[in-house]
Amino acid sequence: MTDSDVIDSYARDRTFVEPGKPLGAVLATSREDVETTLRWATENRVPVVPRGAGTGLAGGATAGDGSIVLSLAKMTAIRELSPADEIAVVEPGVITADLDRAAREHGLMYAPDPSSYEISTIGGNLATNAGGLRCVKYGVTRDSVLGLEVVLADGRVVNTGRRTLKGVTGYDLTGLLVGSEGTLGVITEATVRLRRAPQRPPATFAAEFGSLREAGAAVSAIVAAGCQPSLMELLDRATLEAIDDMRNIGLEAETMAMLIGQSDASDGEAAVARMEELCTANGATFVAVSSSPQETEQLIGVRRMAYEAKERLGACLVEDVCVPRSALADMIGAIEAAAVRHGVRICTVAHAGDGNLHPVFVFEHGTVEPPPEVWAATDEVFTHALSLGGTLTGEHGVGVLKRRWLDMEAGPVVRDLHHSIKAAFDPLGILNPGKAI
Amino acid sequence: MTDSDVIDSYARDRTFVEPGKPLGAVLATSREDVETTLRWATENRVPVVPRGAGTGLAGGATAGDGSIVLSLAKMTAIRELSPADEIAVVEPGVITADLDRAAREHGLMYAPDPSSYEISTIGGNLATNAGGLRCVKYGVTRDSVLGLEVVLADGRVVNTGRRTLKGVTGYDLTGLLVGSEGTLGVITEATVRLRRAPQRPPATFAAEFGSLREAGAAVSAIVAAGCQPSLMELLDRATLEAIDDMRNIGLEAETMAMLIGQSDASDGEAAVARMEELCTANGATFVAVSSSPQETEQLIGVRRMAYEAKERLGACLVEDVCVPRSALADMIGAIEAAAVRHGVRICTVAHAGDGNLHPVFVFEHGTVEPPPEVWAATDEVFTHALSLGGTLTGEHGVGVLKRRWLDMEAGPVVRDLHHSIKAAFDPLGILNPGKAI
Repeated sequence: MTDSDVIDSYARDRTFVEPGKPLGAVLATSREDVETTLRWATENRVPVVPRGAGTGLAGGATAGDGSIVLSLAKMTAIRELSPADEIAVVEPGVITADLDRAAREHGLMYAPDPSSYEISTIGGNLATNAGGLRCVKYGVTRDSVLGLEVVLADGRVVNTGRRTLKGVTGYDLTGLLVGSEGTLGVITEATVRLRRAPQRPPATFAAEFGSLREAGAAVSAIVAAGCQPSLMELLDRATLEAIDDMRNIGLEAETMAMLIGQSDASDGEAAVARMEELCTANGATFVAVSSSPQETEQLIGVRRMAYEAKERLGACLVEDVCVPRSALADMIGAIEAAAVRHGVRICTVAHAGDGNLHPVFVFEHGTVEPPPEVWAATDEVFTHALSLGGTLTGEHGVGVLKRRWLDMEAGPVVRDLHHSIKAAFDPLGILNPGKAI
Repeated sequence: MTDSDVIDSYARDRTFVEPGKPLGAVLATSREDVETTLRWATENRVPVVPRGAGTGLAGGATAGDGSIVLSLAKMTAIRELSPADEIAVVEPGVITADLDRAAREHGLMYAPDPSSYEISTIGGNLATNAGGLRCVKYGVTRDSVLGLEVVLADGRVVNTGRRTLKGVTGYDLTGLLVGSEGTLGVITEATVRLRRAPQRPPATFAAEFGSLREAGAAVSAIVAAGCQPSLMELLDRATLEAIDDMRNIGLEAETMAMLIGQSDASDGEAAVARMEELCTANGATFVAVSSSPQETEQLIGVRRMAYEAKERLGACLVEDVCVPRSALADMIGAIEAAAVRHGVRICTVAHAGDGNLHPVFVFEHGTVEPPPEVWAATDEVFTHALSLGGTLTGEHGVGVLKRRWLDMEAGPVVRDLHHSIKAAFDPLGILNPGKAI
């Protein structure tokens, strides 16, 4: 496609980052389309920006001037689903939740579940090594990938990894390609691991706390007790207020944090009862518990509304720091301090069991770029996360948004290695230039 | 050290591969020793062969003529163990089981448990991405590593990864270094993930079958039923005979295979009862079940004797193919056929839940190199494993022993990428040359 109005919709992701003017867009329907595109791009030294559904939150799929957008969204086949081997072979455009649903017909599940999983693609999840709510028990996308078919920058095709659960033949190219944000190759097929789906509905609790410190202590206690939640989400007061504004949830004046947890284990009700006790022991003012699917949906529904509720408040810069679990309360405190110091509204949701926080910086609707005070607050949040032994991004990726902080975390030798590896895969530098590293 | 008699003991691993004559050996006690060694080696273009305890089974630590052996075995400090964050920071010479024991004092465990874990080092486990018996539930070494400190070939130090459970800043250098068999850098510190130790002793079963086909079907049924064993080992008739010869275990004439399984879950007894049912339903002639620690030790003890029992029969070439789980019985059949066709004694033990088989090719004691019929049988086994969608090595690594089959699995484009990555990390090619890729 070369119609510039149409292309524009393929040139951006879910961030505010303004794209350039791409030359055109290719909607690949086969590996051969991808090969042809990349051979042409190599011959003509044209940058290629691969993309899935464009739900990224770091600008990783933002297309620049003179580039070709290469969409994999039309490659939607689930080529194989083997219950005996608990694997599936999928094209990159498969919607994440569709794969999960297909697996569930066989008593299996595809575990990685980024919040966008009803609209994001497996290919996009692979590019960013996406996380999700179930990570706390089942790991991130990389933990569910066994092998890849990849078209390299010069159009050559390579198969990495395997169909087996274990394997150590050669370097881990599969793991290297996952999370490389389309800068090393274009994934045209993935062999992913499925897991047994829980055999009954999960048991769930939602606990309210008068302080974040107490909620953080409850998280630590739950982990230390070995309760192994399959989901554990923390919402701060600012997030709860935004949700209460949108849909009255009867938010109490003294509630400063809510912790929502689940267990999908066979003894899940006992695990949730234990988590309830630990919340109460750590000062929870109210705890609801349920194992009925409808009530569970209501409890989890509060968490699901978080992003939509924040978008009503203004434009959103969604951040993604991750800290050692014991530093969770400290990190939330630092986020709140940055909000006050810079006069910025920040609403925070955390995948608490992983120490992964999403502070959402809210600024005025219609503003093209976040104002300076937002960047100043962001900078403070990143600096503090790193000082706690944390990282800039737990699951969203670096894209273009976080490149300016990269050296602060990784340092010059890692930068050298990144660029040497990039050159090994893509010597002309045509694959998604200016992203990830 | 430059005394050639002493060096010789540092120049070999547990394989029959004969080393060359190294120039000397360095027993590093600090990162600085490693930096000094590698800077000197770079200046003088001298190959460096890093090693841990030398328990490898693929010749990965075999030192060549004119090389420097760099032993990390004296770097044995557990620098940090954080129960709150469930991580440990360790030097590479720490014995794997020692880390596990240190973790258990805090109700935690270090999950990866290669059979050699009482004598192997974390550094060696990292170099080979070692597996073990608990992999079926807890994954391989790579799944337990969060970050590394690594000295590069030129003596520069790099920190990869992080202390957090999740993180996607830049390429996955940690995962790339794990399993690279000392060819990309020398690991001087690792930040590893610990897990909650099971709160009670595991429940265990041992089932005897009149055919391998039935045992294979029981494995499939156990997986399909979602029993999630924490260990599931299969022993063939040849292995059982070797064990029975060494220590009378009352092996019945009709027993062709034994399956030993465990569950360490909180409802482990129920899980093992279900596994017992499934064994019986699939033709088991006898099943013993226990959850007493002493009886469990006896049942597992049979498996532990396997390697020692085989070593009494002759010199051993221990192989390590891995196939999709549903192909387990097919692969065992192919191994037996190769044994008959080539007149070679092969005893097979499998980490059945992972599809990872260890056919042990037995040949005459005192023979320097396996005879041609052993190589012919090995070749047939590898070829068959690959035809089933399997891999040459599930957990031991490529070393020098499996390089001749590498292209058959990986192909020329992967080879190119391997060598480009190697050149990016080690442009002079001084790190463990001739291994892994």
